[in-house]
Amino acid sequence: MNVNERIEALRQLMAERNIDVYYVPNQDDHLSEEYTAAHFQCKSWLSGFSGDSGTVVVTKDFAGLWTDGRYFTQAEHELAGTCVTLMRMGQEGVPRVNLFALEHTPKGGILGFDGHVVSAEEAMFFARNLMVKDAHVHMSEDLTDLIWKDRPSMPREKTFLLSTEYTGESAMDKIREIRECMAEKHADALLLTQLEDPCWLLNIRGNDIPCTPVPYAFALVKKDCVNYYIDESQLDDAVRKALAEAGTVIRPYEALEEDLGAMEHQIVWTDLNKINACLYDALSKGRNEILNSASPVEIRRACKNAVEIANLKKAHELDGVAMVRFIKWLKENAADPEMSELKAQNKLYALRAEGEDYIEPSFDTIAAYKANAAMMHYTATESNYAMMKPEGFLLVDSGGTYKLGSTDITRTIAVGPLTEDEKKYYTLVLKGHLGLAHARFLHGTCGNNLDILARQPLWNIDIDYQCGTGHGVGYALSVHEGPQAVRWGIPSASRPSAILEEGMIVTDEPGVYLPEKLGIRIENELLTVNGTKNFYGQWMHFENLTWCPYEREAIDPRYLDDETLSWINAYHKQVYEVLSPYLNAEEKEWLKKETAEITR
Amino acid sequence: MNVNERIEALRQLMAERNIDVYYVPNQDDHLSEEYTAAHFQCKSWLSGFSGDSGTVVVTKDFAGLWTDGRYFTQAEHELAGTCVTLMRMGQEGVPRVNLFALEHTPKGGILGFDGHVVSAEEAMFFARNLMVKDAHVHMSEDLTDLIWKDRPSMPREKTFLLSTEYTGESAMDKIREIRECMAEKHADALLLTQLEDPCWLLNIRGNDIPCTPVPYAFALVKKDCVNYYIDESQLDDAVRKALAEAGTVIRPYEALEEDLGAMEHQIVWTDLNKINACLYDALSKGRNEILNSASPVEIRRACKNAVEIANLKKAHELDGVAMVRFIKWLKENAADPEMSELKAQNKLYALRAEGEDYIEPSFDTIAAYKANAAMMHYTATESNYAMMKPEGFLLVDSGGTYKLGSTDITRTIAVGPLTEDEKKYYTLVLKGHLGLAHARFLHGTCGNNLDILARQPLWNIDIDYQCGTGHGVGYALSVHEGPQAVRWGIPSASRPSAILEEGMIVTDEPGVYLPEKLGIRIENELLTVNGTKNFYGQWMHFENLTWCPYEREAIDPRYLDDETLSWINAYHKQVYEVLSPYLNAEEKEWLKKETAEITR
Repeated sequence: MNVNERIEALRQLMAERNIDVYYVPNQDDHLSEEYTAAHFQCKSWLSGFSGDSGTVVVTKDFAGLWTDGRYFTQAEHELAGTCVTLMRMGQEGVPRVNLFALEHTPKGGILGFDGHVVSAEEAMFFARNLMVKDAHVHMSEDLTDLIWKDRPSMPREKTFLLSTEYTGESAMDKIREIRECMAEKHADALLLTQLEDPCWLLNIRGNDIPCTPVPYAFALVKKDCVNYYIDESQLDDAVRKALAEAGTVIRPYEALEEDLGAMEHQIVWTDLNKINACLYDALSKGRNEILNSASPVEIRRACKNAVEIANLKKAHELDGVAMVRFIKWLKENAADPEMSELKAQNKLYALRAEGEDYIEPSFDTIAAYKANAAMMHYTATESNYAMMKPEGFLLVDSGGTYKLGSTDITRTIAVGPLTEDEKKYYTLVLKGHLGLAHARFLHGTCGNNLDILARQPLWNIDIDYQCGTGHGVGYALSVHEGPQAVRWGIPSASRPSAILEEGMIVTDEPGVYLPEKLGIRIENELLTVNGTKNFYGQWMHFENLTWCPYEREAIDPRYLDDETLSWINAYHKQVYEVLSPYLNAEEKEWLKKETAEITR
Repeated sequence: MNVNERIEALRQLMAERNIDVYYVPNQDDHLSEEYTAAHFQCKSWLSGFSGDSGTVVVTKDFAGLWTDGRYFTQAEHELAGTCVTLMRMGQEGVPRVNLFALEHTPKGGILGFDGHVVSAEEAMFFARNLMVKDAHVHMSEDLTDLIWKDRPSMPREKTFLLSTEYTGESAMDKIREIRECMAEKHADALLLTQLEDPCWLLNIRGNDIPCTPVPYAFALVKKDCVNYYIDESQLDDAVRKALAEAGTVIRPYEALEEDLGAMEHQIVWTDLNKINACLYDALSKGRNEILNSASPVEIRRACKNAVEIANLKKAHELDGVAMVRFIKWLKENAADPEMSELKAQNKLYALRAEGEDYIEPSFDTIAAYKANAAMMHYTATESNYAMMKPEGFLLVDSGGTYKLGSTDITRTIAVGPLTEDEKKYYTLVLKGHLGLAHARFLHGTCGNNLDILARQPLWNIDIDYQCGTGHGVGYALSVHEGPQAVRWGIPSASRPSAILEEGMIVTDEPGVYLPEKLGIRIENELLTVNGTKNFYGQWMHFENLTWCPYEREAIDPRYLDDETLSWINAYHKQVYEVLSPYLNAEEKEWLKKETAEITR
């Protein structure tokens, strides 16, 4: 079946059900977006577009794929020759995909989607807006499933335990704390739908999706037990024993919907943005009262405990060692005619894998040469990568997941001579990066209050980087986590913000992206720590976690004030102190030079 | 009747009605808080506390006045010897006043208040929280009114027109625009309850409350006419004629409640935070659908048009001339043994009154010497003011309302030698003030994104100024207006934020307040203007409106980077250019010296 045949088969099923518009988003039944199992790649199978992000909408006479600027080139290529129209998100005249779906559902018509991969909030948005034209939703069937014959099955990889030596807290203690949160809100049950939440609560990890060590599982925390919904085959005896000790009952993954349907008159805490519409439907039938609020696990796991912090510091040292070895190798081999983005990327994967307790990359490495780096989420692949020359920048955004925690670092590395513009932009990005890292603030501050510190040197020359400055980082979980973020604008339900609390991590990654020309990004991770407490409140600041020299070839002190220059030199001194014990004599010598004092 | 007798009389009325708790806020029936007519000073009459801000709660055996830190000393003094307890807001252990009122209403009990001076939102908050204990509100009577025999009547001062030469737009055009906003939301009617809204819409001003040139009036914009609710005695023939031309029907002030009660099945746009509970009640009875959203007038009047901006620039020049003459006089007379806060304040009132088209002060001048300036909202009065000596700072926060617009400026002036600390803090406040003034940002930015630029030099030394950095300024309306603001934290319903739009004004007024020691504040007004538009969007920045030298005696360049020092010198040069044409030779010479270049 080719793409056009798939779309036709779908239209047939739609016609049989009088469905006017069918909506296929890019989420799994936990509403994960960034990485999902192959099983959930319906939009890719239907449209032929293999990128990670996109939504398909099919009507009687139209099929469209919505995706964003990161994927325009790839999508153009992959959709060529099919009946699927590329809808370039963010471009003038391109409607928002959910509004398009609504508008094309006629009076009295039907909008279809699989309620398992659409949030309750979004389903209600559709239902509310269709009501006014006597139209409705059809969400009880996954039509793609009915035509996708060789659909990959759900992954069922083995899970493993993270001991308290890594997590700092037993599952039992965590459950007790979470039950205290529930008691405060008079909740009878707490439904954990995000993949990371049960993992954090039960100190379990898995391997069902790429780059995020989690299994497909739900948890339902009740007053007397915790139901853990997972395929039994994924649990070995050790995991089974630990779960039993923590008072956990193992239930089949598929049993959750039924179990929720059987609950009655309970106060159930869940997040309508994070629970899929079918689960919500099941829950609603028993006239349970829904406490719609962010999961208490979300904020707990964002605030790292002392053991996690100590481990993370170690992970970042291991990571820095890999990065330093990588940069040394890259610069020494930049003139190799075989040098390519792919070769660099694979070298870095190999170096990082040497680290103690390493699990996997925390996300797909971005190794982007010159203009490729202007595409913020470019990834070189076996079939599509650039060769390099000994000139300009290679941008490398990468990270590892260790049992000691996850890392995320970007360096933009000179592989040869740089232009004056490249130096200027690099130096201004660095200035912003350091401005945020050195912020001092009162408790109560959120990322939206601080973002300007990173952005200002670029905004002063009318350049923006069109994305957030930073995100939270999970502990051997998703490398992107909330609720904190560093971005500008007014926080909203879809772009929330949270007060920065002690123990929270944020990345600090401003950049310059000039299409067809260059891409520069510098990223460290910052740990939020308490400073002094006085009359005004609790003062806070960031502690740097990431150790790797900035690109000294690219730093032009003319664009820096004295304070910023002193910050660079102090950081470089510390990088040498932290990493040199891990390095051999030759590596030490190299690092010494790379971190030598920079003067005007 | 003394205060204790008043409280007892109130308790008598409460007992007759089985009211357990009576709640007396500090608002008028338009929910104005800052300035209200004497008629609405119920909390002052009941408690004896004459300050502008406070709430009284009375139960069978307790009477309390809640007020904030600005008023603690005054309230202690005024409440002494009465049965009224001072509840110091913000201090540990002091409950929020509305929560206290709720908690002290017993199961099945009654919480009373005058529904005309409590917002619909707050009344519903009370009702919702009482429901769970079978208690309810009693809001149909103003019990204070029943015992306050010599209560001042409602003010009925004459209104006057502002011609389009001042407003830049006729009432007719404004009404048309507002009707377009209504049509977009399918609203049949728009109820304007904030005092400023009908004034802006109809180009009318009045004189019913201090420091804000507005009459007590409501407006109801319908599809075919505008009902203007005001006492007829306040309108002369010219105003009457203009109103008729704009399609406005004059209705008695008191008729609004009845008119709303007579509406049925209409879609009525109003803001539940800005409409009093009794009006809302009337509106609800006719099963009208409420569109609860900020009034479209609010954002329109915040964005000044070209004529208003040209006028405002002129107003700020007039204001700068008054300020320069005042500072010259103050410094020359600082050693006068008769010099006092009051004398300084009165001199400034007189100088400002010389300005063209001057109406009145835009708020009560703050002239606070030395430690008095640590009280952010201190006002010297005939009966309570400090004498001055030729040393230290006098903080002067003042403004004028002209037909050309309103102004708000603060200067902290050296009246003699300063300490090193005074210079250090002054210079850091100035650094933050200039940091914000020179911000460059993309459209979409709100004040919460920029606030850190003003606060950072102080936060870097663990000092905060515990208030917002800036507010909007009305055009010959309230000197404090929204929806924009410059502050930190996460915006919320009670502390909203708005995107900065072209033509919006914000004040820029960081400070240092060390209790018992000193107070420093520097304030200019900034106009939001568009810069270039490029790939990233619309760039914006601020244009300075305020012209008056900073205190050169207090500037210590050791705390400044070169860029900030260059900003000061450039500003001072411009101050001389703008103001000198208005000044005589002696004044010019003085200003020349005050604005001479500052070097290290």
